[in-house]
Amino acid sequence: MWQLFTFPLCPFSRKLRLLMGEKNIAYEVVREYPWEGRDGFWQMNPAGRTPVLFDPARRHALCDSRAICEFLEETVERNPMTGGTAPQRAEIRRLVALFDENFYNDVTAPLLHERMKKRLVLRQPPDSKALREAMKMAHGHLDYIDWLVDTRQWVGGSTLSLADLACAAQVSVADYLGGIDWKGHDQARGWYAVMKSRPSFRPLLAEKMEGLPPPPHYALVDA
Amino acid sequence: MWQLFTFPLCPFSRKLRLLMGEKNIAYEVVREYPWEGRDGFWQMNPAGRTPVLFDPARRHALCDSRAICEFLEETVERNPMTGGTAPQRAEIRRLVALFDENFYNDVTAPLLHERMKKRLVLRQPPDSKALREAMKMAHGHLDYIDWLVDTRQWVGGSTLSLADLACAAQVSVADYLGGIDWKGHDQARGWYAVMKSRPSFRPLLAEKMEGLPPPPHYALVDA
Ligand SMILES: N[C@@H](CCC(=O)N[C@@H](CS)C(=O)NCC(=O)O)C(=O)O
Ligand SMILES: N[C@@H](CCC(=O)N[C@@H](CS)C(=O)NCC(=O)O)C(=O)O
Repeated sequence: MWQLFTFPLCPFSRKLRLLMGEKNIAYEVVREYPWEGRDGFWQMNPAGRTPVLFDPARRHALCDSRAICEFLEETVERNPMTGGTAPQRAEIRRLVALFDENFYNDVTAPLLHERMKKRLVLRQPPDSKALREAMKMAHGHLDYIDWLVDTRQWVGGSTLSLADLACAAQVSVADYLGGIDWKGHDQARGWYAVMKSRPSFRPLLAEKMEGLPPPPHYALVDA
Repeated sequence: MWQLFTFPLCPFSRKLRLLMGEKNIAYEVVREYPWEGRDGFWQMNPAGRTPVLFDPARRHALCDSRAICEFLEETVERNPMTGGTAPQRAEIRRLVALFDENFYNDVTAPLLHERMKKRLVLRQPPDSKALREAMKMAHGHLDYIDWLVDTRQWVGGSTLSLADLACAAQVSVADYLGGIDWKGHDQARGWYAVMKSRPSFRPLLAEKMEGLPPPPHYALVDA
């Protein structure tokens, strides 16, 4: 069985876990905190980052969430999440990059730094200015998600795709860290409620980062 | 004809230009400086980043260099640059991500900030500590490139691939900005000399960022 090296709040691993859930691919989670810089982990991934998907039978490690998602799309045909014509696939991949890079850099990464890393690793109080800035940036991204799900059925087009999974992965980590305020974002909120109710989401909602409990609404499917 | 919105030192655009060169795809360059935040540019790409590849006939914009490269690989079959088996393709994509993200963040981005943006936009002197740090990080990445081209024929495997193009794109921008010291990196240097001598590289070596001339060795194929 695949082994997924990760920690509960890694958004890139969440995207991958949603994909594996949607495609019904079995895996077990192995806890890895990339900031500990474990030698064996750097040997598997010279970038030193989660997720790593490891095949114990072949002793083969796959690295980088987008490369792993493409691999799973190529090797497991059921429930394709980057389907359609070449321009449709380009649109899905554009949005995956937007959530993996822009949403992550603007919102998820500062929240992870201020609310997770400072609390659990650095033992420092969060910087309230950085938190305010991240939440302001979140509003801009939620506006764009509102617009996307208002003009098409799903985030990346007319069917559920990796764009939805990438977006939901980032939003779910930001929500866990108290960074999402849905006021004025009814469309995005409605879409996220649908995502949360999918069976692929359940394992993520049940999982907790030790020492850092989520807010009460986080795991409620209709909140 | 495709229009490529970019500026001469964008490494992601360079990767794409190398791919278009290798695949013989015609395009014209349209100058775009993302830091100017031009409205029309943000309308084409809500991430506000170069490269954008625009099809004037269909009035269709493609964004994100990796999404665009996948699109060109899917639609223009000649000279595939992400070929092979699924694990080989995963290895190419892992390395593209490593150069696009880790090499870029550690080396190219700080060099662009200190040596290009501060000079041309902010009118500030570069921070010598940041420059030293970037060059130290460059040595670590060159060590890894040495190892890659020592254990396989090309960066991503036994054939030229997008991993070589992504790597050469980052190295070429770092080299333009005086950030590459080849001492102790004979394997990487040999590989880069081969890359520089390819016809796809020529347009890049000839192009200059106005107000920021490259060092004399930059465009020499045997230096
Ligand atoms: N492009 C990578 C990004 C992975 C990433 O940034 N992971 C974070 C955790 S959320 C990490 O391991 N950071 C540690 C580091 O960069 O040193 C992917 O998609 O897999
Ligand atoms: N993932 C993007 C990254 C593009 C990128 O970061 N481009 C830089 C120029 S080298 C940029 O436009 N930066 C402006 C910004 O981020 O605001 C890609 O591969 O196309």
